[in-house]
Amino acid sequence: MTDTPPEKTPVTLLGLGTMGTALARAWLGAGHPVTVWNRTPSRAATLAGARVAKTPAEAVSANPLIVACLLDDTSVEEVLTDTVLTGKDVVNLTTTTPAQARTRAKWAHERGARYLDGGMMAVPPMIGAPESGGYVLYSGSGPLFEQHRATLAVPAGTRYVGEDPGHAALHDVALLSAMYGMFAGAAHAFALLRKEDIDPTTFAPLLADWLTAMAPAVHQTADQLRTGDYTKGVVSTLAMQVAGTPTFLATARDQGVSPELLTPYFTLMHRRLTEATGGDEDLTGVIDLLLRPEPTA
Amino acid sequence: MTDTPPEKTPVTLLGLGTMGTALARAWLGAGHPVTVWNRTPSRAATLAGARVAKTPAEAVSANPLIVACLLDDTSVEEVLTDTVLTGKDVVNLTTTTPAQARTRAKWAHERGARYLDGGMMAVPPMIGAPESGGYVLYSGSGPLFEQHRATLAVPAGTRYVGEDPGHAALHDVALLSAMYGMFAGAAHAFALLRKEDIDPTTFAPLLADWLTAMAPAVHQTADQLRTGDYTKGVVSTLAMQVAGTPTFLATARDQGVSPELLTPYFTLMHRRLTEATGGDEDLTGVIDLLLRPEPTA
Repeated sequence: MTDTPPEKTPVTLLGLGTMGTALARAWLGAGHPVTVWNRTPSRAATLAGARVAKTPAEAVSANPLIVACLLDDTSVEEVLTDTVLTGKDVVNLTTTTPAQARTRAKWAHERGARYLDGGMMAVPPMIGAPESGGYVLYSGSGPLFEQHRATLAVPAGTRYVGEDPGHAALHDVALLSAMYGMFAGAAHAFALLRKEDIDPTTFAPLLADWLTAMAPAVHQTADQLRTGDYTKGVVSTLAMQVAGTPTFLATARDQGVSPELLTPYFTLMHRRLTEATGGDEDLTGVIDLLLRPEPTA
Repeated sequence: MTDTPPEKTPVTLLGLGTMGTALARAWLGAGHPVTVWNRTPSRAATLAGARVAKTPAEAVSANPLIVACLLDDTSVEEVLTDTVLTGKDVVNLTTTTPAQARTRAKWAHERGARYLDGGMMAVPPMIGAPESGGYVLYSGSGPLFEQHRATLAVPAGTRYVGEDPGHAALHDVALLSAMYGMFAGAAHAFALLRKEDIDPTTFAPLLADWLTAMAPAVHQTADQLRTGDYTKGVVSTLAMQVAGTPTFLATARDQGVSPELLTPYFTLMHRRLTEATGGDEDLTGVIDLLLRPEPTA
């Protein structure tokens, strides 16, 4: 008697951009039958072992599990519109807004499909490389997620953030927005050193270590937001930090660096200090100002 | 015969704000004789074991090693102006701009002192707690740093960044600027979730992990800056990233969040894409734009 290996869930993959191709490779490499469709069929040529469908309808009819990794939400609607979705499990990894994800979920439900939305916290080289730390945020149908959890975990780690189909995209956009803020800060830092005899690759380890050491500060911010007490655990008060901003602006001026990436945050810090009673908070109050922005002329 | 413990270097400390007090406590705790001076003498009352000087001149004359931790550069000049600095080792931990540090170094040299400037990458609770990861950046007199290295290492870790007395402050401002960028990004992220039924303390671990995972991207930025090849190792091109920005802005709009903390960086990304040949770089070119800002009307 021989053990037959358990059959791997077949996957239909719509879209063979860099990310779609990486996903297909990961599933093929793990022994999953994969049916692919791409607007430009030549992209499938490099995927040894994949079945290439001629139309989206043919690709969708091939398997119960449909993964879409397309350009944008409009592409998803266009590609799926002439397919039969009844009884299908649609996993949409296309980058969209939360509102688009919710609309697409409703649209899929109306066509008889279950729907799971995914937000990819990974770039293509991280796909199929569990040690890279890349992962996909999922929200929408819990039963779909549970049923296909193992299959979805092949290309990257999975984190389910709730039934609201918009929440994966919202978390995705929030995390990437925070990353762009960090990159903006790093850009300002590198610019400050540009005219000095300082090797940027000597500075980078200090910068990476410092950002890594400061990242956990978001836990205190979250705790203050949850409790509503913005003075809880404060070490450097808003008043102290606002008092320090002229040093940052003078240094930028002296180094010939435009402060345009720093000033918006400093402006909000100053506004909050003016509005709040005392300066015993730290920086959390800035978040409230973003939700009731000053009217612009 | 008994072993006499080696004598600990005596320290004069000028300024007993929160940080100065923490420094004094650390040195006292480690057995260093400490002479303190503060504009308001009552602040010294809680420092058991410290000798309290009545004037800055008395404090400076007490010991060869003088540490200043005052409000700003003007305070340093005012406090030291009527003291005799000949033969003294001045370590200035006061927050200043690089230009102020260079001027203060020259000023101290003219008065016969050696000068070391410090930029504190720590808040007071990190002082005397080596496991906290806080440290002080030093630049200026290398011989002073080497001679007093062990004493300086008592309150926090030490990192010497060169003979230019402005470089500690420049590194300090650069690292803190990058931190404010990260905090600005995190503020935007928390704001996006504010109107949803999402506990910020559930989101915070995802955010801290993501920022920690992305912080090492600064190594590639540094390498691109060093070599001048901004296309080296690029995974997500500037063209791809600029194409993604409408999703971020639409999400902010849908969540009622002002995009003012994100738009300056996105604007520079777009400008660089327009100016650069092709979009095969990633984000490093933004740094060059900060150094030749567009004239404002």
